Amino acid sequence: MKKVALILAGCGVYDGSEIYESVLTMLSLENHEASYQCFAPNIEQMHVINHLDGSVAEGESRNVLVEAARLARGKIKNLAEAKPADFDAVIVPGGFGVAKNLSDFAVKGEDMSVQPEVLSFIQAMHAAAKPVGLICIAPTMAVRLFGEGVKCTIGNDPEVAGAINTMGGSHQDRAVDEVCVDEAMKLVTTPAYMLASSIGEAAKGINRCVREVLNMA
Amino acid sequence: MKKVALILAGCGVYDGSEIYESVLTMLSLENHEASYQCFAPNIEQMHVINHLDGSVAEGESRNVLVEAARLARGKIKNLAEAKPADFDAVIVPGGFGVAKNLSDFAVKGEDMSVQPEVLSFIQAMHAAAKPVGLICIAPTMAVRLFGEGVKCTIGNDPEVAGAINTMGGSHQDRAVDEVCVDEAMKLVTTPAYMLASSIGEAAKGINRCVREVLNMA
Repeated sequence: MKKVALILAGCGVYDGSEIYESVLTMLSLENHEASYQCFAPNIEQMHVINHLDGSVAEGESRNVLVEAARLARGKIKNLAEAKPADFDAVIVPGGFGVAKNLSDFAVKGEDMSVQPEVLSFIQAMHAAAKPVGLICIAPTMAVRLFGEGVKCTIGNDPEVAGAINTMGGSHQDRAVDEVCVDEAMKLVTTPAYMLASSIGEAAKGINRCVREVLNMA
Repeated sequence: MKKVALILAGCGVYDGSEIYESVLTMLSLENHEASYQCFAPNIEQMHVINHLDGSVAEGESRNVLVEAARLARGKIKNLAEAKPADFDAVIVPGGFGVAKNLSDFAVKGEDMSVQPEVLSFIQAMHAAAKPVGLICIAPTMAVRLFGEGVKCTIGNDPEVAGAINTMGGSHQDRAVDEVCVDEAMKLVTTPAYMLASSIGEAAKGINRCVREVLNMA
């Protein structure tokens, strides 16, 4: 049974991991007879968003690992303790938390950097020739993780695609049910909720992403 | 297209709606070509549980509607505004939030009562002969909603099943992939994470519950 590390960014599309994408990834892994372990960095969220009205919840703070534990029914570990040797692949679901907590793309755009533990774990997996799946907005981290020239997709949003290209990446437009595979880098990306208008639409691309990642593992 | 109201209790198994059950219900409804609208009461949660270590987060408070909005990507309405005439059926996913926020079963057991807006909406749906689906721990509300004699399942937990029987219900043991249907009451129940050991297991019973509810709608 192949073992996949899932890196989460909190719990909720606007300040954490996108919930549907995370659950669909877990369901797809189980349907493909792979096992998974959730991880998140033990850091404070950039901020807390009230998901009812979209406002920043002033004065409130939440921890990425503690909130991501909601998405894992408590079965989650500190990313600092993750050992690349224990896993065959790693997948990062989307949600703004990836651009706010796992990186600072939401604030700095093309001048972004990736959170040190996320960078270290994924680069170690890549160095060991293990495949990586990045979903939705997560491919904005691709150039910092894999270097210039890496091919990836976030769908077709011109602003985000432009930022990826400015950083030195090679953005490829894809539909919601498609994936982009950079064979040399063993990187699989899919747009999910960058384009999806329903859970079922997101599921199609995520299932394909999971299948491609497992095929390369 | 059949329209289903989903009543949520927050976001997270230990103090809100069980995330996987909620997402699986939405995915199943979409796969069955039904539409849905999420609702939650605009009330404070009983408490906040740190899902990493299981402790009560002292001094912290969260609103059920605001947190449930995470599970709905913001597309949620105050349950007080829900009109039974707009829907063909109603489903309540599980999670301890159902026993802590939508009712007080977690505190009072068989002396429990159901939150007034939840009671009012579901009883109005029942009075209009529309089917109701209750998942996981949610059938603990069945006797208060439908009256004595109602048949339902929470799986096979003797303590919870006993409380349902003491209230005057008729608990029926069921496996994780099964449902209990009270034809007269148009009530469908399934154990989900009262028994499930994985997302795929929970999905089987939830898919069946959704199908039975839609068949009766």
